[in-house]
Amino acid sequence: MKEQNEKNLKIIYDTMKLAENYYHAATVMSFDMETICPPAAMEKQGETMAFLSTEGYKLLKSEEFIRAVTELYGNLSDEDIDPLDRELVKSLWREYDKIKNLTPKMNHEHDLIRNKAYVDWLRAKQSSDYSVFAPSLEKIKEIGIEEVSLRGNKSADPYDDMLGDYERGVTQTDLDEAFGECKERLIPLLEKIKASGKTIRRDFMSRTVTDEAQKNMARYLLETIRYDFDRGAFTTTEHPFTSDLARDDVRVTTHYHPNEFTASMYSIVHEGGHALFGQLQPAEHHDHRIAGNMSMGMHESVSRFYENRIGRSRAFIDLIYPRAKEIFPGLLDDVTPGELYEAVNIVEPSLIRTESDEFTYTFHIIIRYEIEKAYMAGKAKTDDLPRIWNDKYEEYLGIRPANDREGVLQDVHWSFGFGYFPTYALGNMYNAMYFNRMKKEIDVDALVRAGDFDAVNGWMKDNVFAKANILTAKEWIKDITGREFTPKDFLDYLEEKYGAIYGL
Amino acid sequence: MKEQNEKNLKIIYDTMKLAENYYHAATVMSFDMETICPPAAMEKQGETMAFLSTEGYKLLKSEEFIRAVTELYGNLSDEDIDPLDRELVKSLWREYDKIKNLTPKMNHEHDLIRNKAYVDWLRAKQSSDYSVFAPSLEKIKEIGIEEVSLRGNKSADPYDDMLGDYERGVTQTDLDEAFGECKERLIPLLEKIKASGKTIRRDFMSRTVTDEAQKNMARYLLETIRYDFDRGAFTTTEHPFTSDLARDDVRVTTHYHPNEFTASMYSIVHEGGHALFGQLQPAEHHDHRIAGNMSMGMHESVSRFYENRIGRSRAFIDLIYPRAKEIFPGLLDDVTPGELYEAVNIVEPSLIRTESDEFTYTFHIIIRYEIEKAYMAGKAKTDDLPRIWNDKYEEYLGIRPANDREGVLQDVHWSFGFGYFPTYALGNMYNAMYFNRMKKEIDVDALVRAGDFDAVNGWMKDNVFAKANILTAKEWIKDITGREFTPKDFLDYLEEKYGAIYGL
Repeated sequence: MKEQNEKNLKIIYDTMKLAENYYHAATVMSFDMETICPPAAMEKQGETMAFLSTEGYKLLKSEEFIRAVTELYGNLSDEDIDPLDRELVKSLWREYDKIKNLTPKMNHEHDLIRNKAYVDWLRAKQSSDYSVFAPSLEKIKEIGIEEVSLRGNKSADPYDDMLGDYERGVTQTDLDEAFGECKERLIPLLEKIKASGKTIRRDFMSRTVTDEAQKNMARYLLETIRYDFDRGAFTTTEHPFTSDLARDDVRVTTHYHPNEFTASMYSIVHEGGHALFGQLQPAEHHDHRIAGNMSMGMHESVSRFYENRIGRSRAFIDLIYPRAKEIFPGLLDDVTPGELYEAVNIVEPSLIRTESDEFTYTFHIIIRYEIEKAYMAGKAKTDDLPRIWNDKYEEYLGIRPANDREGVLQDVHWSFGFGYFPTYALGNMYNAMYFNRMKKEIDVDALVRAGDFDAVNGWMKDNVFAKANILTAKEWIKDITGREFTPKDFLDYLEEKYGAIYGL
Repeated sequence: MKEQNEKNLKIIYDTMKLAENYYHAATVMSFDMETICPPAAMEKQGETMAFLSTEGYKLLKSEEFIRAVTELYGNLSDEDIDPLDRELVKSLWREYDKIKNLTPKMNHEHDLIRNKAYVDWLRAKQSSDYSVFAPSLEKIKEIGIEEVSLRGNKSADPYDDMLGDYERGVTQTDLDEAFGECKERLIPLLEKIKASGKTIRRDFMSRTVTDEAQKNMARYLLETIRYDFDRGAFTTTEHPFTSDLARDDVRVTTHYHPNEFTASMYSIVHEGGHALFGQLQPAEHHDHRIAGNMSMGMHESVSRFYENRIGRSRAFIDLIYPRAKEIFPGLLDDVTPGELYEAVNIVEPSLIRTESDEFTYTFHIIIRYEIEKAYMAGKAKTDDLPRIWNDKYEEYLGIRPANDREGVLQDVHWSFGFGYFPTYALGNMYNAMYFNRMKKEIDVDALVRAGDFDAVNGWMKDNVFAKANILTAKEWIKDITGREFTPKDFLDYLEEKYGAIYGL
């Protein structure tokens, strides 16, 4: 038995190493496409990427590889199998089960559809013309439903499977409950904030800052949180993101708006959080090829931990304030740290998710979730999404997009699939839970004030990152905090923080 | 017969199309490596690129592919073969003939030697210690001679074959004659310039300009010469270059020195020239896979046409002057267009080739050529090259390097082989010849003043670019101008232009 397991593991590692060449190349090409590839070259580049993905995919669907995974999966209780190899086999089996009925031809076609959808979305957004994107969106829905319907292990409702792709085990039932609580507590709280009469100074927030100064600030912030530049890089894209290109290559992007200097600051701290999660993966998880197995919800919890729980704290503002005065000469001469703290925590309903405040953010997600749910269930038609979108913004936030560029077309996500958005809101709820545990063990506030991010990152590495590749989110949050998942900690935090700021 | 040709052509096109996926991916990864890839990720990225290149190379060295090329090469006189397919087969045959007797073992050994030579050169340059590089240089010479001696179709003198790799058909006889004329006319002319007593104002040339302003200038210049941004992009690297990534993807890079604003301006116009050559390739040459077959000398003639013949002309300065005043606020307030024109055409002997002026540039090439020639012929020993180098700089330019970093070690080229440098000088001579023809057909000066680059580029496309992939440089220049290759036009141009500037 032992010999057979060893042989199968060798097949798995050899094949994955070979396939990694194709995926590495495709990922670099994808990063290139999002950052610098010229418009007319996109289609050809998409074709080459599809070729590479297909070659990699062929290897991971080869008879020999599948047999090795299947045999090992049947022997998982064998004691001679290393626990991390067991995790690898389990994850490979899960992935195989998802795609085992997808033909290479279908896979290739879906790649092309997704590449086209991305290009169409870009064009649609540029011209604020939803009709340019609508046919691709419909196809994305069709191939999404087709893909989950072909799985071995599937739910009764295809949308639950899509949600599970980004947060394994979380269903519409969970989200309906959590988002229900959010609406129940946050809608009245938003009304109180609006009625509070509190005026937060914001005149300086739209002062003009050059791209060069904003870039220097972005670099300083990444250095502050100990992002490793030897194993990473940053550049600009319209829509900021983080990309794990290789074990020693985790890159982030941001964008600069001349009259919103804090937009790029918080975008870079957010992406920097994602990147730290990638850069601080346990070496043995890389060795055992499970280093990317954490869920999207976990990832968002970490990025939002750095962006909001740390980045928008008074301690962090006090830490960066002196350097900010140097990097932005004159900009903050008449602004106190307290005023800056309040300004980056202003609550104001707005149209663009990525620029929204911490408080109203959850509404942006609830809206997207409710639209996805209705669209997947056939209760909303492709052509109706812009109108439904606008209506919901009016209902929950009291504002209405003037066009689709600032409405339904603002996010890239639907150009590749559905089910992703809820992870953003779940992330806030997870980090609220582990932040409460963290506070009991280390003096977060004092460490941030002192700029000691090695200590903060160290706690995250030992407690939050350590088992993220192994457990489901529900298991993981219980493992870190000893408690079942709940949105309560997050809602308590919002009430306390914004109650203090708005004097409620 | 016809059927067999068709079958073979299908094999060739199918194989090349498949291999293009690998080369496209490797080229994008290479561009990524030179522009943004983080230091710790370089090695892994190099490994993936090597994997991709090997996969592509395997296809182009497959038995089936070689047989198809060989059979078609034997049938080239068949009338049914399309003329452009004939060119493709000829070029594939030439490449195959060069490497057919190289064993995989030898190939691997030579790769290792070249890799080591590059590392040794880097170290030698950093420490300005020629002895670190000398043993590798000797080996580069040996393997270079060995490689050309194994070819099917070879010359009596190995150095002629090395020269021919970068400029097919050009031999030492040609270069001795051309460079002899250059020395005869340029050495006395340089003496006259030195003795002229003319003072050119240059104080403003080292005024500080931000990266952002230089970037805006670079974009304006690329737009001015009608570089197509829909099929290209630009970014920064330490050493500027142009990269053809795909049919619709030709990118350029530049770099910004805060106190040398014209350095990035002329670097971007130079690379922009290379890029226009790539972007304006005939569509049918792309279709027939010969769009990259032009020689290095031709490519340099085009980049230097845009950089020097256009970019350093009075008409071009008059065209860009008003916009330059806007992009660089205050910088040129006390500078006239005439002063700017003279400043970008200052003649001053200097030690570093890449920073030298248009006039003295040719001496840098002649020196390298004379050293290569003597070295290949066994008339100069490895240990003597630094002394010979320094002596020649003193003889031709009246200056002597203080160390080998600014002498014999300054260029990377000899770490991979010999024969490249002359193409730089030949380019100047080619464009002088076709510029004289061009002037008879269109009013270049008036068109440049009017910013009508569509007309200038159109002439280049119809006359210069049209047959570059098909003819050797000598055939090509005769096809364009009706005359045999000569350095005379270039020397006349220098005499006239610099005679006027220096009042000779």
